[in-house]
Amino acid sequence: MTDRSRTPAENAELALLLEVAGTPKPGNVDRHRDLDDLRFEQFLAGSVGSARGLRAAADGAPLGGAFERAVRGMSRQSGGNTQFGCLLLLTPLVSAAAAGDLTREAVRERCRVTTVDDAVAFYRAFEHVDVAVGDPPEGVDALDARRGSDAEPALRERGTTLWDVMELSADPDDGVPDTNAAEWIEGFPRTFDAAEAVLADDGAVLDRAARSFLRQLAAEPDTLVATTHGESVAESVRERAASTLAAVERTGSLDPAEALAEAFVDEGINPGTTADRVAAALFVALERGLAV
Amino acid sequence: MTDRSRTPAENAELALLLEVAGTPKPGNVDRHRDLDDLRFEQFLAGSVGSARGLRAAADGAPLGGAFERAVRGMSRQSGGNTQFGCLLLLTPLVSAAAAGDLTREAVRERCRVTTVDDAVAFYRAFEHVDVAVGDPPEGVDALDARRGSDAEPALRERGTTLWDVMELSADPDDGVPDTNAAEWIEGFPRTFDAAEAVLADDGAVLDRAARSFLRQLAAEPDTLVATTHGESVAESVRERAASTLAAVERTGSLDPAEALAEAFVDEGINPGTTADRVAAALFVALERGLAV
Repeated sequence: MTDRSRTPAENAELALLLEVAGTPKPGNVDRHRDLDDLRFEQFLAGSVGSARGLRAAADGAPLGGAFERAVRGMSRQSGGNTQFGCLLLLTPLVSAAAAGDLTREAVRERCRVTTVDDAVAFYRAFEHVDVAVGDPPEGVDALDARRGSDAEPALRERGTTLWDVMELSADPDDGVPDTNAAEWIEGFPRTFDAAEAVLADDGAVLDRAARSFLRQLAAEPDTLVATTHGESVAESVRERAASTLAAVERTGSLDPAEALAEAFVDEGINPGTTADRVAAALFVALERGLAV
Repeated sequence: MTDRSRTPAENAELALLLEVAGTPKPGNVDRHRDLDDLRFEQFLAGSVGSARGLRAAADGAPLGGAFERAVRGMSRQSGGNTQFGCLLLLTPLVSAAAAGDLTREAVRERCRVTTVDDAVAFYRAFEHVDVAVGDPPEGVDALDARRGSDAEPALRERGTTLWDVMELSADPDDGVPDTNAAEWIEGFPRTFDAAEAVLADDGAVLDRAARSFLRQLAAEPDTLVATTHGESVAESVRERAASTLAAVERTGSLDPAEALAEAFVDEGINPGTTADRVAAALFVALERGLAV
């Protein structure tokens, strides 16, 4: 008699909460760890605040505006940027899921048809929180994300869509390629693969989230670590995650990841882009029947 | 430029999340502890699921219907009853806050004018989850909450409003008085006092939640413990909480409460009614400016 289903916007908000609760998630805030400047409860508030923007995405609002609204709501806590990257991934996923078509092709198509207005809204979202981004490619200073609304004339003059922005970020002429932007351009291959792995995994949801994080961090250097510490540090972080993942799989215990979590927090290593994709993967898994 | 305010419904959802994250909260699920049959992530899902009913309350829906809707949404997880009591307290509080009048008098008045329809909806809410309730007073078996919708004819025949139901539960002829029902009848004195204490406290929000729980458990026997273990156990739990609170206040550390948390979990003591009031107090504190 009771309707057992959550809406896509509810599943997206729940994915944000499960992501931050998943533990250990080395280098990130999790159920058992805060960072110096970012606390667990700020992620809880960020998740609640995001919900209206996520509902806008589900209701068919343009992706840029829905994203900006979600970020504005997320920013209503004192920790700063908690889930900017998560929301960038979740917005098109929620939009597609609400239309009953949560496939790689359908999500990619939604991203592909974004407009200049979407790009303008995306840039405006940077005014709500400080986001760690790399320098813009040479010659496109006018499109530096940190310019916020000031970038609007340049975006309009060039006819730059949100898709174009993501394409540039995914594969810049110089600087660090952004794997979240690559998800937009490539139809979320990492996210959908990770969702299937979460569904194929067993055990408690928060343990699955932790293993998903470790698998993804072992597979590819984290964009945020590369941006803040350089690409060689990001590669070494990837290698340490791969060793830890091997130990976790060999022992069947997450304990080896606890040690890595302590180490990364001590070293100031925050693989936040990988955590973003855990949230996205959990959303897809929830839509596909992951039980909580 | 960014609007920094959360809506009352958002604050209520955030209060649910901060309540379950607050740690240590002896005998309850918290950031660091699950119970055998109830896990942290199920409270996260319960919070997200409650939001639509809380928004209905904010939009002026009758309290009974808004509550039932919140409970229905809350129940969309596999743990069963996570936040039934929290929602019973939050529904009139959100309703009053959304009308710009979050005072004891205004909340009590909203409760006082509830109708038979509200009572019918309240009984229907018991169909969504198993809730631990005591036996009904002698002679009113027809109003046993466990009857759910089957109680409707008796409610209508007697003209029993939701206020009447709460009045009976707050001060039954026999059986355990329900302190949450007493909040309804008395205009939420414990909740508003606890909110002021949370605001007057300092330190991280989740520590304040833990101290609020301990203060409230030390002040009055927990209804759920009295219902499930008897009133003398509930009084002994209160006394142990009072000793622990004294140690916490003397040392300025929550460590003494960690030991109590381990003990209560081992003994199967779950002071859930007190936890409900922590959520309600956090809501009032958020509405009055508690920063996260």
